[in-house]
Amino acid sequence: MKDFFTVTPLEKVFAYIPAFPKTQPETIPLEIATGRVLARDIVSSEDIPGFARSTMDGYAVCAKSTFGATEGNPAYLTLCGAIPMGEAPTAPVRLGHATRISTGGMLPVGADCVVMLEYASEIDETTLEISKSVAPGTHVIFRGEDVSKGQAMLERGRKLRPQEIGLLAALGISSVSVYQKPVVGIISTGNEIVPIDSVPGPAQVRDVNSYSISSQIMEAGGRSRLFGIIRDDFAALLCTCKKALEQCDMVILSGGSSVGTRDLTIDVLNAFTDAEILVHGIPVSPGKPTILARVGSKAVWGLPGHITSAMVVFHRVVRPFVEHACGMTGGMAGGINFRGFLIPAKLSRNIASAQGRIDFVRVRLTETGDGLMAEPVLGKSGLIHTMVVADGLIEIDMNTEGLLEGTFVAVIPL
Amino acid sequence: MKDFFTVTPLEKVFAYIPAFPKTQPETIPLEIATGRVLARDIVSSEDIPGFARSTMDGYAVCAKSTFGATEGNPAYLTLCGAIPMGEAPTAPVRLGHATRISTGGMLPVGADCVVMLEYASEIDETTLEISKSVAPGTHVIFRGEDVSKGQAMLERGRKLRPQEIGLLAALGISSVSVYQKPVVGIISTGNEIVPIDSVPGPAQVRDVNSYSISSQIMEAGGRSRLFGIIRDDFAALLCTCKKALEQCDMVILSGGSSVGTRDLTIDVLNAFTDAEILVHGIPVSPGKPTILARVGSKAVWGLPGHITSAMVVFHRVVRPFVEHACGMTGGMAGGINFRGFLIPAKLSRNIASAQGRIDFVRVRLTETGDGLMAEPVLGKSGLIHTMVVADGLIEIDMNTEGLLEGTFVAVIPL
Repeated sequence: MKDFFTVTPLEKVFAYIPAFPKTQPETIPLEIATGRVLARDIVSSEDIPGFARSTMDGYAVCAKSTFGATEGNPAYLTLCGAIPMGEAPTAPVRLGHATRISTGGMLPVGADCVVMLEYASEIDETTLEISKSVAPGTHVIFRGEDVSKGQAMLERGRKLRPQEIGLLAALGISSVSVYQKPVVGIISTGNEIVPIDSVPGPAQVRDVNSYSISSQIMEAGGRSRLFGIIRDDFAALLCTCKKALEQCDMVILSGGSSVGTRDLTIDVLNAFTDAEILVHGIPVSPGKPTILARVGSKAVWGLPGHITSAMVVFHRVVRPFVEHACGMTGGMAGGINFRGFLIPAKLSRNIASAQGRIDFVRVRLTETGDGLMAEPVLGKSGLIHTMVVADGLIEIDMNTEGLLEGTFVAVIPL
Repeated sequence: MKDFFTVTPLEKVFAYIPAFPKTQPETIPLEIATGRVLARDIVSSEDIPGFARSTMDGYAVCAKSTFGATEGNPAYLTLCGAIPMGEAPTAPVRLGHATRISTGGMLPVGADCVVMLEYASEIDETTLEISKSVAPGTHVIFRGEDVSKGQAMLERGRKLRPQEIGLLAALGISSVSVYQKPVVGIISTGNEIVPIDSVPGPAQVRDVNSYSISSQIMEAGGRSRLFGIIRDDFAALLCTCKKALEQCDMVILSGGSSVGTRDLTIDVLNAFTDAEILVHGIPVSPGKPTILARVGSKAVWGLPGHITSAMVVFHRVVRPFVEHACGMTGGMAGGINFRGFLIPAKLSRNIASAQGRIDFVRVRLTETGDGLMAEPVLGKSGLIHTMVVADGLIEIDMNTEGLLEGTFVAVIPL
């Protein structure tokens, strides 16, 4: 029995995200963990730094020894040697004494601040003149000031940027538990599709979507696996679907946009006893004939055949599912996800839009005297070159009939 | 002889970029080319599509056959079979005739448009009723409409996004000439530095920068190679520098920020007969003690030891050099480089800034009712956790004394 073709609002589509599992964790070397997603919380097992460190070249002193010192009325301290880098000081610094210290050096017992070189001059081998009063703590990072033992530092679900990699290194974590990259299978369907290294005959076209979607999967943090081109044939498609579902965490069927192909996809999905068609059509242009099914615990997508439609749907609809599978929970840091940030620009001309659907308009951005201008890219949605010249998309919501020239729009980077 | 320590303005630093070479090209499979940079221009050797294609399910007709048709006064055409997907039509469509066609199908000779299913109904096996007049070209992509033979499609220096990968697939380019990823060597210096998998003794700290900088190199499109931790020793550092210069396209010395370490770096660089110190200090906080030298044709950097300083300098100063080595020439598409885009936000409180230097202030972004708020992250620049909680940087230029609460600022994503 055919499912009724009613479109599913995007918020309902996204509500299915938590119903799909994240991948299993794996432990990998820190060197290759950039961009991966933490699979467990990181709590510091030590104080960082483990000792009071100088942040300047200068002299370690007890602040009291400098109190009242000015250029006109300097303080004179007894200079007692220097602290070698990487070694613990052997003697404490007493009141009225000072020890040379370099940036990163360990403060001796008794010292609570560092006087910068420019406020100190060595009068002779044992006498230091100080021309400024220095407060306790000046130019010092105290033990545990950066990270204290037992402190929760990073939460599960955070994508690792260079600074998180640095923090993990500082904590001595040389291998890290991250979610596996989800494997997303791509099946290209259609009798007219030929491999990219062949010369298309009349009525044939090369398999573009396997490559563009694969590239999008990698950008989203997944691994893609190509299952080749399958003719519009129930048995062949079912067989390849089964294989892909065995080997992958998610499967994308990139098919034609014809009713026949869509029906075939639905028939194949319904042939799985544990399949449920969740979405059959979305109110999005380009991209309406999008299918989402759950087979067992896995998501299977039917994406439209036009490259632009497929790319737009992947970018705005499929990608959050891939990121969920990657283990991501929201923001990059501080709850903010930069990919969610939009680029403000001024529309270069009127755009018409149909009500009742979300229109994604490709735009090219140009710098003007005052800010960016978004210029809609003309051309039918099946044309690849419109995506190549586009810098981003404008999303025009269901209740907007169009946008006027000069309107400020928020551009989604492509 | 020591070089005089005067800071070099950033525009002068960036002016050195073209003096360094890009890497050599290599040919790689299209499947792994995402994010890589084209090493030669791509000109189409064929028309895409190679035939007139339908963009809808419907009927291929000659537009003239529909002229004047309305709901009240439909046109009746002779229905002659269907065009199978992937096969060239065997018969032309004559005036007054129609042939079933699916999305992506090849238009027969004689047809110049497609009538959508909703404006047509099959009265019997050979009669089609059409209720709308259709203009020539409707729902058709003509031969060469997307890409025409001989057309310049992509320029050398462009970074490949999913849509460019798709275009290359469409052109039948299954392996592509891209610039090699530049290899950037990292040498960590300092007597106080220990490997990350060891427990630091008193006065010792783990080698954070090798990992955070390596991660930044990968994000910039390069490959990193770690040369370990070298003590502050002229001969040892020179020897490792030589090795790194032999094996890498660029070398980064991540050293302490002490005068002694900086002097040692300069001495080692000057020991190369073909070395020229280009930059010794930049007017940037954090990050002033930055060194750039050219040894032969290669860039060698001396970065400050503090993780934050090193990261900020890499992000804003070193990265464009790495991208140049990667072959990148400006924008991602249409001349616009998204990384250059800044995120507008409102400052949560006053920030003081010293004139005469560029201050980079770490900020955390929070969503408010109307837009984003940028909240400066407090903490000394040596503290790793300040980078981990930061979402971005605000750049305060040399001639600004500070920014007031409520000012709109442009945040550089981190």
